Formats: sequence, structure tokens, C-alpha cells
Amino acid sequence: MTVEITTLPSGLRVATDRMDGVATVSVGVYVDAGARNEPAAINGVAHFLEHMAFKGTERRTARAIAEEIEAVGGHLNAYTAREQTAYYAKILKGDVPLAIDILGDILLHSTFDQAEFDRERSVILQEIGQAEDTPDDIVFDHFQATAYPGQAMGRPVLGTVETVSALPRWALVDYMGTHYHAPDMVISAAGAVDHRQIVDLAAAAFADVPAAPAPKAEAGRYAGGDFREERDLEQIHLVVGFPGVSHTDPDHHAFQVLATILGGGMSSRLFQEIREKRGLVYSIYAFSSSFHDGGVFGVYAGTGEREVQELLPVLCDEVLAIGSRLEPGELARAKAQLRASLLMSRESTSARAEHLAHQMLVHGGHIPTEETLARLEAVDAAAVARVAQRLHGGRPTVTAMGPIGGVEPFDRIVGRLAA
Amino acid sequence: MTVEITTLPSGLRVATDRMDGVATVSVGVYVDAGARNEPAAINGVAHFLEHMAFKGTERRTARAIAEEIEAVGGHLNAYTAREQTAYYAKILKGDVPLAIDILGDILLHSTFDQAEFDRERSVILQEIGQAEDTPDDIVFDHFQATAYPGQAMGRPVLGTVETVSALPRWALVDYMGTHYHAPDMVISAAGAVDHRQIVDLAAAAFADVPAAPAPKAEAGRYAGGDFREERDLEQIHLVVGFPGVSHTDPDHHAFQVLATILGGGMSSRLFQEIREKRGLVYSIYAFSSSFHDGGVFGVYAGTGEREVQELLPVLCDEVLAIGSRLEPGELARAKAQLRASLLMSRESTSARAEHLAHQMLVHGGHIPTEETLARLEAVDAAAVARVAQRLHGGRPTVTAMGPIGGVEPFDRIVGRLAA
Repeated sequence: MTVEITTLPSGLRVATDRMDGVATVSVGVYVDAGARNEPAAINGVAHFLEHMAFKGTERRTARAIAEEIEAVGGHLNAYTAREQTAYYAKILKGDVPLAIDILGDILLHSTFDQAEFDRERSVILQEIGQAEDTPDDIVFDHFQATAYPGQAMGRPVLGTVETVSALPRWALVDYMGTHYHAPDMVISAAGAVDHRQIVDLAAAAFADVPAAPAPKAEAGRYAGGDFREERDLEQIHLVVGFPGVSHTDPDHHAFQVLATILGGGMSSRLFQEIREKRGLVYSIYAFSSSFHDGGVFGVYAGTGEREVQELLPVLCDEVLAIGSRLEPGELARAKAQLRASLLMSRESTSARAEHLAHQMLVHGGHIPTEETLARLEAVDAAAVARVAQRLHGGRPTVTAMGPIGGVEPFDRIVGRLAA
Repeated sequence: MTVEITTLPSGLRVATDRMDGVATVSVGVYVDAGARNEPAAINGVAHFLEHMAFKGTERRTARAIAEEIEAVGGHLNAYTAREQTAYYAKILKGDVPLAIDILGDILLHSTFDQAEFDRERSVILQEIGQAEDTPDDIVFDHFQATAYPGQAMGRPVLGTVETVSALPRWALVDYMGTHYHAPDMVISAAGAVDHRQIVDLAAAAFADVPAAPAPKAEAGRYAGGDFREERDLEQIHLVVGFPGVSHTDPDHHAFQVLATILGGGMSSRLFQEIREKRGLVYSIYAFSSSFHDGGVFGVYAGTGEREVQELLPVLCDEVLAIGSRLEPGELARAKAQLRASLLMSRESTSARAEHLAHQMLVHGGHIPTEETLARLEAVDAAAVARVAQRLHGGRPTVTAMGPIGGVEPFDRIVGRLAA
């Protein structure tokens, strides 16, 4: 067993995964809160906070944070998602004490200087501009907003130009005080780790973290719907989706298999039918994204103004047929792809640290690889047929950006999918 | 020593890099030819060929290629660059024979069926559309075209809508016959490899590869210049560049250090001055790209319509000052970043296979990590000052896309950089 877990008196969990033959360590702090924990008026606060964590502490200026980690060749980075915020470092093994000291410092002793705060607001507005200029990225923000209208779950992680422009410094301090609590945080490390050392370092660096549990986000209510934006682009960026499953749903692995069969590789149905046989796209794939309390399942395609008219009916047909005509080898191939992908990811310190943190936050404990592989192996044709049925349980979500004149009306797409 | 190299009678080199404690293998065929080996009229042929290699052989249909590799959970992929085309697989270690058999099959026995060829043309036109919709990507195509005007070196890897629409099948067969020769190809593998086994498999699968050396590309002549495209975007995507150095230039590592000091991380000068102090960008970085016979050095920034007016003078000042005011710790930090980055990449089978192939094609042999680290360590302040001087040897290249009204004239930028 390479994984060890220790819970500190504050409730902060420290999980490590020892790998032989590597010289690096990936270590991060994973917080069980993100954009879906934000009130509407301060949408973007979780992400803004993530930026401000790098802008100076009682002991370190922003420049010192950057210089200290890069002086040892380490990387320090962070991201904000809908349900999670992560701060992590990748370093050579001797530099673990520095990395954990910095992580504790930026998460517990940041000063959130007002002048730095105002400057960082401009940086985030540029980041929003960059996301807006990346259609195959921003189309997913519109997808999420359409699937979960009027809910925190549907709001963009970056916030909007309006909310970020208006965000006051106290909102950020408040959000951190409310959500960055020991029982809702995990320190996870993988690579050339010594569990005892990391526990001791974490106990020292995170001594001041609040011990009370944080409030939970309200439940997401998938609704579905239609979003279209005419934009002067070469391609139509299209996402068609459905309600999916949570991380802990018994059908979680079956949904992953379903996504793989439908659009998970070169041999998948959508790739073969829409790219190989018809040449209508360069990129097409299916995804199954899970949250604490639900998920979304869908297909992305980037296609042309003319091509979309042929594509949409075929895409709908493939979604409708997915559970019914399982060919010999198709199920086995999808499971082999997911199995190998998991085994390959186990050779990366960063993938393992993140995977372990995710298990701790989502499942409340470590799930051995053998167990995950067994659950995956247990997915049979009946399970695939069952989850394909579940796709038809809700109103679809359709999002299209680009030269969308030829995209047929929402009702017509709904009709095709109900056939 | 983990690296072993064998040259087959045809001149085909087989290089392997054994890693302990891993269960996967990355194996690829790397061809020393890409877009810069193309006549203007058939620009895009190298990339089109790379696509067609997946469209069926004498023994396998396109679908069989996809299904066979994915049935064992493997990935098969390829890319085309200006000087190189690569076809590679990542598999679990027991599946090496299958991967090498498929690689040999698609590279030596593809049929290039005319119907498949016509369909694939549509896929590539969609790919061109997708690239066009990604401004922080396509701006580099314009940068390259402006740095090397009217030359193969400056043409886009994907080709253009015009050249791809007109490309005949025979051009592709011809390009392959001219450039896919044993002395200009390397099979490289890293991970859980057995060198003897891979040599034997490669000898069998690549028995039919032509043994004569392929013609070389004509020399690139950096010219520099100005390119602007007004486009309805949130950001201006800006690249400012200079002539750089080849892979084999004695100053190659010094240029990498220079790029790292200027814009290689959070502690770099551009990040600190332009993002941290002024909040003018979200993304800014410097790059040093090398070719067989030269290179380009430059800076990318994504900024706003108003912000660009403050950004450009500061960017030029930083480029001008780069060699002169080296602060204590700055040089050591850049070297530590490059050193750690190399050591970290050595934990990935795919990075190691690609790195080894690159060394074989560019340097004609393997360079031990210790030697690379020693060359990097030897870069001193004098070397950094020397290469900073070399930046001033040619006309700059400026490329800007987006709401570019506020970008000052080219001559003014040239003036600032000559100050």
C-alpha cells in the first residue's frame, strides 16, 4: 500500500502516495469549495481569492513568493473549479519543506493588500477577455449556465466583467473565512514522499486553520434549455448535453463507459460516423462530468456553417442508438481504454496527488486502484443500456456559438432526441 | 546508462531509454521533414500525409487501425511541425509488438484511398477553421510568416484553405517517397522497454523503408517585419520577436536562460513588471524556438485595447535592458528552473521518447542529461549579455491581432528597440 492518511486535530486531512523511482513531489492543498459556493452578486470571488493568495503574506511579498519557489526550480500554481479550489506545487524532493511552508503561508497569512487587489482585478478582467476569445472553451460556460439557469452551479468560474469590476475586498476575506476550514480541506502529496515528514510540516504550516466545518452549497437543479450566440467565426462550436451523474452515483463508471463508446477515441461511434465517414468535424468528443450532487453528459463538436445541417441529425441518432446496438468488442474496448488511462496516469506525481485529493474530498477516503478497476470491469451491457435510458430523463441542453444560421431550432432537436 | 541505440542496415536508427518502475511504453517514429520541406503550391502536404497515415493500409482499414490500438487501451497519435513529423503510441508494456507493427504498417503500407483522401480534406479544412478561431494560436502562424516571408519556413503547417482544397493525392505520395527515408527517421521508445526486442520488431516492421538519404530543406532567411489583423476580439494578441539560434548553436542554452529571465515564470521580469506591477495582461511569456539553421526569440502578450499603449513601451524597455542589469539571484533562478524542468520531464515516458528522438534528429546522437545540465550550468552573466546583444542584430517581427487601433506603428516599435 503506497497511500497513507492522517487526520490532524483540526480535522485537516493529510494524504500521501509514495512512488518509487521518482525524484519529484507534487503537493497541494485542495479546498472543497469553488464557484458554486458563491452568492450571485459576488460571482468570481472564489477565483479572485485564488489569485490574491499569490499577492503577499505577513512574511512574504508577492515577488518573494514567486522568487522563493522558482529559486529551487519549483512550480507553484492554482486553479478554481465549480466545486473545488486547488493550490499546488511541483518540486524536487528536497524542497518539500519550502513548498508546504509557502502553501500554508499563502492560505492562512495572506494580507490581501488593497493596492494589489485593485491591480489583480485588471489581470482577471484580461483573463476573462482571453476566455471570451477562446470559443471552444467559453461555449462550456454557456452550456453550464443553460443546464443550471439562475443557479450558482451555472455561473462562470471567472465571474463576469460586471461582478469582478464591482467585487469588494471584504467579500473575498468573507468567502475565505466561510469556506477555508480544516474539515473541508485536504493536503495531498505524491512522489518521493515521506508521510511522517509531510504530516509534521503540514501540522506546523496549517496550525491556524479554522476547525469548524464549512457550510455546504445548495443543491443543483438541472433544467436544460437552449443558448445561441451569433459570432463571426470559422466554426460553429456546439455542445449538446443531458443530465449526468454524481461522483458517488452507482452508475458513475457506466456513464464513463458510455461516454467512451459514444465519443472517447478514434474508434468511438461519433468519431467514426461524423469525422471518418462524413468528414464534418476535426474535433468531436463526448464527456461525462460529475459533481457532488449530479452531473452533465454531453457531446462537443466544432463544425462548419454548412456541415452543421448534416451533423445535428446524425449526432442525435447516435445519442439515441447508444444503448441499443452494442457491438461485440465495443464494450471491452471502452473498458480497456479507461483502464489503461488510469494505469498511465499513475506514472505522474501530479496526477496521483490530484486524484488522491479528489477521492478524499468526494468519497471521504482513498479508493485503491484495484477497487476502481474492479468497478470499471463490472460495467456490463445491461448497465450501459440502463444509463443510456437515463439520458432521456431530462430536457437536453443545446449551446451553439459561431455562424449559427443553419442550426435547427431547439424544439426540433428535442424532437429528434425524443424519437 | 539507460539509453541504447542501434542503426539498422537501412540507416534507420532505433533508440530506447529504459525507465525502472513504470508499466508503460511510449514509442514513436520521428521523421526529419515537415512543412518547411514543402513547395509553396502544395503547402500542407506534410500534415495531410500525417492524417492519411491513419486512413487504411494493405492489411488494415482506418477503423481497424483505431480499434486495434484502442482495444488494448493504447493511444495512437501524430503531429506535424515545421521540421518534423511524428507518429507515436503510448501503450502498456505488453503491447509494444502491436504498436510497432501498426506504426510500420501505416508508414510503409498505407493505401491513400482516393475516397478517404477526399473526406479527409474536409476534416483538415475544419481543422484550419478551428485554428483560425484560436487567436493565441494562429497569431504564431502570422508571426512565423512575417519572420520568414515568402519561404517554406514561414508557411503554415496546416496549409491554407486554397492549397488544401487543391492538393492532389499524388503530391502526398510524392512527398512521402521523397522524405520518408531511413537515414532521416528515428524510432524512439522510452519506459518499460527491452532494447533488443524493439530493434527486432522495428527491423521487421520497417524492412521496406528506402535507404537513400532524403534531400534537405533550403536554408531559412529571417527577415522580420510587421503583420496586423483587425478582428472583433476582446484582446489584442501580440507577438514581438527577433532572430534566435539553432539547436546546435553554442549559445542555445544561453538563449533559453535569457528567455527564462525575461519571461519564463512568475518571477520573470515581464511577469513582474507587466502583470504584477501594472495589471496589463493575464498571459505574458518569452520563448526561444530553435530550428536546424536558426531560430526565433520572442514575447507573447494578450492584452486590452487600452492597455496595449502602456504595454508596448514597457515591453521594449525590458527587452532592451535584458542583458545589462542582471540582479543577484536572477541567473541562478533561471538555471534552477530549466534544470528542474528537465529533471521533472524525465519522469514521463512520452517526454523521454520525444526528447531522445529530437536529440537523434538534431544532434545526430544521444546527449546524456548530465551533459545538458553541465552546459546549462556553464551559462554565465557574460553569456547572457552576449546573447542579449545578438537580439539586436536583425529587424524585429511584430504581429498583432484583435482590436489593434491603439498599437503604435511598426517604425516606432523598431525605434524603441534600437534605442
